[in-house]
This record gives sequence, structure tokens and C-alpha cells, in this order.
Amino acid sequence: MLISFEGVDGSGKSTQIELLRERLTDAGRDVVVVREPGGTRLSEQIRDILLDTDNSIAPFTELLLFSAARAQLVVDVVRPRMAEGYVVICDRFTDSTLAYQGGGRAAASLEWLREFNLRVTDGLVPDRTYYLAIDPEEARSRYADVDDDRMEAAGRSFFDRVADAYERVASEEPDRVVRLNARARRAAIHDEIWKDLARNL
Amino acid sequence: MLISFEGVDGSGKSTQIELLRERLTDAGRDVVVVREPGGTRLSEQIRDILLDTDNSIAPFTELLLFSAARAQLVVDVVRPRMAEGYVVICDRFTDSTLAYQGGGRAAASLEWLREFNLRVTDGLVPDRTYYLAIDPEEARSRYADVDDDRMEAAGRSFFDRVADAYERVASEEPDRVVRLNARARRAAIHDEIWKDLARNL
Repeated sequence: MLISFEGVDGSGKSTQIELLRERLTDAGRDVVVVREPGGTRLSEQIRDILLDTDNSIAPFTELLLFSAARAQLVVDVVRPRMAEGYVVICDRFTDSTLAYQGGGRAAASLEWLREFNLRVTDGLVPDRTYYLAIDPEEARSRYADVDDDRMEAAGRSFFDRVADAYERVASEEPDRVVRLNARARRAAIHDEIWKDLARNL
Repeated sequence: MLISFEGVDGSGKSTQIELLRERLTDAGRDVVVVREPGGTRLSEQIRDILLDTDNSIAPFTELLLFSAARAQLVVDVVRPRMAEGYVVICDRFTDSTLAYQGGGRAAASLEWLREFNLRVTDGLVPDRTYYLAIDPEEARSRYADVDDDRMEAAGRSFFDRVADAYERVASEEPDRVVRLNARARRAAIHDEIWKDLARNL
């Protein structure tokens, strides 16, 4: 089983992932959480390149690097763990590419990126995706004390395009993507996720 | 003007590039030579990842990393230098992707990779490509004292598939790709390149 969490930084993904991990573990499931970009030796090296503020990175280059990190993560961790019966929870997955590189950077159309994503993951699609929807400005205020890395330094209009793309994906794929109000109490959000999982899996 | 050199390691690309660089410089042209993967800060970081023998790198991951290095090289070096009037000589370019990741690794079909390459370079195609054709085994014997890096350690059948893909590209794009017998004397090969350039550019 593969579950992904999506949303801008500050939307509460980490909190919800931790709550879900505990709940699944309490229910006797083996759980592994991976974050993107990262999770393998090579993917962490790519992460360092991407977050290095001294690097000049064109939009299509950025797309390729995030995708390379994901391709390796799927081969080395996600598929093997799924085969062993683990529930794999991804902190960001293919929809982040649609939102950030498609919406935010306009590196390619969402249509092309969807087909491309399937090549990157060799056809793997999350069983459920929890999208924590929030105004990017409000999300930003939740972690304003943290130094900006290269992705976070992209500015307001960038994050508005990211949010628009997330909304489009959620509305176009309602059978997979569950849109959640990230401003709700975290226990309430978690209950909604848990009920959805129980209903669908 | 953009000129690429292609062929397996040991086919004599570096020698021919150096001869051509000197000849063009003597003729009063500004010349810049770039090697792939590399040529920008980020692309050199990617090169280090690719040649690191401790890394597990799946075929599609490898494709994405080489392509990321190229995308950035085109944006930061190739297009700006071409706009300044330089002759840009690439030691490997898009055809290496067709040969190594398409033929050698079978990461994707040549048809898909051709379309993908155009996205990576934002439509940039070499004006002339000089392909130094040689039996991979013979090419290998030319540098047998050098330690194998990750790419070179791939084995005989891999390099046979690489050579087959190069041959296919040369036969399918005769208006761009000039196939040269890499076993000829180097001065003879250079003369053939120089005459072709004079005739076509």
C-alpha cells in the first residue's frame, strides 16, 4: 500500500504523517515513511544539489533532478518495501512535480508531466493521496523563523501557481486525491484521513 | 555553430576535438569545448554522482541525471556562447543519450528519447555531429590501463548495444551525423572533418 501526502511546506504534512504512522503501527501494520527528495544515498546527494542556493538550476533541470531522486527511491525503497507488505508513506510524490515543476516553474504541461511521472515511477501510482490545502501565505507564516532554502525562496506568485496546480490535480483525480482543509484541528484532520483509509483500503 | 563528437570512450574523440579546436582557432574563430556530463557547477556535481561507483543508479535515473546535466549546460554555456558567436564543440551530446541510455541501458525507446532530448535542450540540435565508429572491444584496448569508472564497467554486451544504437542514429540522420572510421590515421580523420565543415557551414 502506497500513501502520499501533498501540500506546500507549512501545511502540516509532517504532523499528519507522524499521526498516521503511529495509528497504523498501533494497528499492527509495518510502516515506512520516506521524504522526497531523498531516501537513498543517491537521492540524498541529489537533494543536496537541489537545495544548494549557490547552484543555477533551470526549470527543466529541476524537474529532471527531482524525478531522478524519485526514480531511484521507487526502485530501491518503495517497491521493495511494498513487496514486503509495508505501508509506504511518501512525504511528497508525483503530485509535487505537477504542482511545483508544472504549476510553479511551468517546466512542462501537466499532461506531459503525468505521462512522464508514470515513466519515472515505472507505472506506480499512490493508492491514496492526502492533499492538505491551505493558502500559501498562511502556510508560510507557520515556519517563518526557518532560513529559506532555494525552493522556499521562490516567492508569492510561485506558490500561488503551486496551489492552483494542486487544486487542479485534486479536482481532476477525486478518486485518488483527498482534499483536506489544513486549517482544521490536527486531530480532526487525522480522523478524516483514518476514516478515509478504513473506507477505501 | 554547434558541433558534437560522439563515439565510445577510446574512439579518439578528445584527439579530434583538440585538432579541430586548433584548426578553428587558427582560422580566427572563437571556440569553446564542453564535455558531458559537466561544464557547469551543477553539472559537475551531477557528474560526480554518476561516476560514483558506490551509487545504485537505475537506468531511468541515469537517463534523468545525464539529461539534467545537459539541460543546465545548454542554458548556462552552450546557448550563451553560441549567441556570442563562438563555435561550441560538445564532447558528447544528445546522441550519447540515444546510444548509452537508449541502446545500452534500454531505459526508453529511441523514439521517445528523441522527443525527450528536444525538451532537455529546448529544441537545440547540433549543426554537425562527428561519430567516430569503432569496434567497442578495440576502443577499450586503447585505454586499458585506466581504472574503470561506473560507466566503463558495464561490460561487452552493453557496449555492443551502444555501438548498434550509434549506427542506427547515423543511418537514420545522415544529413547531420557524419560517420567516420575511427581506425584511420588521426590526420586523415581530421582532414575529413575539416572538409565536411568547409562544405557544410
